Amino acid sequence: MKYSPKLNERAHKIAKKMIRQSSSLGIAVSRADCGAVLIDAGIRSPGSPEGGRLFAEVCLGGSASVTLGLCETGGNWMPSVTVVASEPVRGCMASQYAGWTIKTEGERPYFAMASGPARALYGAEEIFKQIGCTEDSDVAVLALETRSYPPEDVLQYIAGRCGVEPEKLFVLMAPTASIAGCVQIAARIVETGLHKLHELGFDINSVTAGWGVAPVAPVAANDGLAIGWTNDGILYGGRAYYTANCDDGEIIRILDKLPSSASLDYGTPFFEILRRYGWDFYKIDPMLFSPAAICVNNARSGRTYRAGAVNPSILAAWTESGDR
Amino acid sequence: MKYSPKLNERAHKIAKKMIRQSSSLGIAVSRADCGAVLIDAGIRSPGSPEGGRLFAEVCLGGSASVTLGLCETGGNWMPSVTVVASEPVRGCMASQYAGWTIKTEGERPYFAMASGPARALYGAEEIFKQIGCTEDSDVAVLALETRSYPPEDVLQYIAGRCGVEPEKLFVLMAPTASIAGCVQIAARIVETGLHKLHELGFDINSVTAGWGVAPVAPVAANDGLAIGWTNDGILYGGRAYYTANCDDGEIIRILDKLPSSASLDYGTPFFEILRRYGWDFYKIDPMLFSPAAICVNNARSGRTYRAGAVNPSILAAWTESGDR
Amino acid sequence: MKYSPKLNERAHKIAKKMIRQSSSLGIAVSRADCGAVLIDAGIRSPGSPEGGRLFAEVCLGGSASVTLGLCETGGNWMPSVTVVASEPVRGCMASQYAGWTIKTEGERPYFAMASGPARALYGAEEIFKQIGCTEDSDVAVLALETRSYPPEDVLQYIAGRCGVEPEKLFVLMAPTASIAGCVQIAARIVETGLHKLHELGFDINSVTAGWGVAPVAPVAANDGLAIGWTNDGILYGGRAYYTANCDDGEIIRILDKLPSSASLDYGTPFFEILRRYGWDFYKIDPMLFSPAAICVNNARSGRTYRAGAVNPSILAAWTESGDR
Repeated sequence: MKYSPKLNERAHKIAKKMIRQSSSLGIAVSRADCGAVLIDAGIRSPGSPEGGRLFAEVCLGGSASVTLGLCETGGNWMPSVTVVASEPVRGCMASQYAGWTIKTEGERPYFAMASGPARALYGAEEIFKQIGCTEDSDVAVLALETRSYPPEDVLQYIAGRCGVEPEKLFVLMAPTASIAGCVQIAARIVETGLHKLHELGFDINSVTAGWGVAPVAPVAANDGLAIGWTNDGILYGGRAYYTANCDDGEIIRILDKLPSSASLDYGTPFFEILRRYGWDFYKIDPMLFSPAAICVNNARSGRTYRAGAVNPSILAAWTESGDR
Repeated sequence: MKYSPKLNERAHKIAKKMIRQSSSLGIAVSRADCGAVLIDAGIRSPGSPEGGRLFAEVCLGGSASVTLGLCETGGNWMPSVTVVASEPVRGCMASQYAGWTIKTEGERPYFAMASGPARALYGAEEIFKQIGCTEDSDVAVLALETRSYPPEDVLQYIAGRCGVEPEKLFVLMAPTASIAGCVQIAARIVETGLHKLHELGFDINSVTAGWGVAPVAPVAANDGLAIGWTNDGILYGGRAYYTANCDDGEIIRILDKLPSSASLDYGTPFFEILRRYGWDFYKIDPMLFSPAAICVNNARSGRTYRAGAVNPSILAAWTESGDR
Repeated sequence: MKYSPKLNERAHKIAKKMIRQSSSLGIAVSRADCGAVLIDAGIRSPGSPEGGRLFAEVCLGGSASVTLGLCETGGNWMPSVTVVASEPVRGCMASQYAGWTIKTEGERPYFAMASGPARALYGAEEIFKQIGCTEDSDVAVLALETRSYPPEDVLQYIAGRCGVEPEKLFVLMAPTASIAGCVQIAARIVETGLHKLHELGFDINSVTAGWGVAPVAPVAANDGLAIGWTNDGILYGGRAYYTANCDDGEIIRILDKLPSSASLDYGTPFFEILRRYGWDFYKIDPMLFSPAAICVNNARSGRTYRAGAVNPSILAAWTESGDR
């Protein structure tokens, strides 16, 4: 199967649109000394919902549609994001998943989990052994959930790993506690369920389509609380639906473990869970990271399996006065 | 009233987009010996939701917007399609309605119900006498709900009837039991209600707008069951809203008969109904083919009439475990 | 902060699209003697939902996305409009708000409340003192909720006030009781809440994003009743969500007064209220003009405040038979 057009080329096209419309999207664009293009969707700039929507489409390598709307969850209505992915493994796992740990020590240490199609150029993450989907491209597009601009050495490191000239590297940035940040994280609803399927040993290459909807968390007072709320949106408010082509047994075997409610850590706001474990993500039960409700239609058997449900009581804590 | 741009030209533009993006949409494109272009959105190719969405917009002759999302019906959530038609009679009846019976005997007999704007070039169906909307065009775009590529003689027959060179004929294909098939059938929600209005003797030329939403059925194990489920989506889960310009009496006269629930065949899954009648569609009460819920706003009187309701219990059978 | 591209240029681009697709959108395009371009989306033409959607995007100066769908309100489903505004003050207050009173006496007296980005060229309204956002442009785009074509002297007056040649003036028109009219008024949901915030003395320059959804009223029998129903859609069926950057006290101070229910005039259909006050808009409590439900996320504190709720019983009167 040919994978053309390339994820990075499609993402580049969307990134150029963000640059052209930067002033109306509340985006600040600059060039680093090395030539890399920095697209700031919420650090030194206000950002916007549409900026976050385009950010999310870049993360997905241009392979999925992301639309904004409003949803109702347990009587509470709030902004929401809908994602429809036609190449879910490629768009979500080879591109959107924040799987590339960028860590430099040097003079100014830098740490970030990177997502976006540049990951498919780097291609050294474990996941690529199972899904393939690596690519070569003259242009690299990376996305960072961060509040600080990456230093020059980090940008050069990234460009090097991706095999592109630094001036052909586009880095999108948005803090967790920003409008664009909240939108682009909610847009990870299809990716989160796909990753959970993968964690449970399901062969995700059999997944041919993904649909999802998740509430957009309000902008929180700081990035720590924002990490909590944006995860709550997925874990307690998100719904994902997949079409797969497999034996029913492969789904039945894992069905009970699919939704976030299968985790022992389920039931309290994610911020509390983080605090409980001293902010050590690796102590959190990996089974927690999943949509609240998940559905798999097996096109081979025609059977459709459903597990989990949204839990509006957790999301009610996002507003001061749920009863008003 | 001028009808420009032509339905076939608008559909051709969308078809070319499908060809350009074929690899990412899971579409296989080929040329038949006679030169006709075959766009396979789910037979020898996996297809995709976006492929189905574009397929549906082609069926509508580019005259309506089709968007993908998720909906909730009686506590069950599932993928859905929303259609907004600005030229409902032209887009739905002269193009989307599968009204052209293509039947050849010859060496390899072929049978299919064709939809899409090529019907407006052929123009010999009874319905065109009432609605007009025929057109001439250098290019013809046809859509088939099928699992088999049409043979050369069929393609040449179609091109001939449409008055185009075979190499200017574009044929879209998707089986019922495929992602694109399920999406494009759900997108017939506005068309189904319009056809029912027509069947009841209502002058549909007075309808100026149509809005509709319908759940997308899961991909079924075979095309027979898929015919059942995709019809259930419309008959038990679909909603359509029309703006008309007529006398109130014309609506009041037929209001009770408008929704699917007006039919004696209403109440059991469509697959059961088909089985009951030995798969003879013509034995099914034609009053059944209608959205579950239908609404007509008469712009002349300002009155709005509503009939029917969705019936989630039938759709619950689509999933193995409704209670999970 | 630079405000480019200009609202009028973006609106002009959308207006040109409406002209190109006029026949399929049910729009009549003509040139006045002075050269101004008249885009009639529902007076002598049928109009369409998509025509209304584009009309609304023009009103917003191309700064917000407007999408069509269906919503459910208290068991009743109906067409709806979703608006997501990335530059809410600029798009809604400097452009969409119908704040320019155009009144000429002369031979044929004319009165209309004008909206659209041409207002930012005129710039003489009080509101511009607080929000800035005025602009210069070679092209002016104005929108009128009207059933009569403006006379030549009015068009020349508008062009003069906007500082453009008459042939560079584009005037969009749709009556209240038309499909496009009902759509474009529902699309004022974010603007209505922003204006209410402003009326309550809140500094709207601190608002960085707005999301809203409102039902689209049926086309009424006449413009008077249509004014009633389209307002009901906002006042009793609309929801708006804002992101702001302010002190919590500024929100808390006004929270109870934010939704329409804070008004003493709340509770009866808007048409009844108009009749009660002898159609004198200025006698209506200005606190009434607000979404039914409103939510403000303060990005500074991370707190989110919620007030009001939709009131489906008022909207039930739009249909003849709510119980069918």
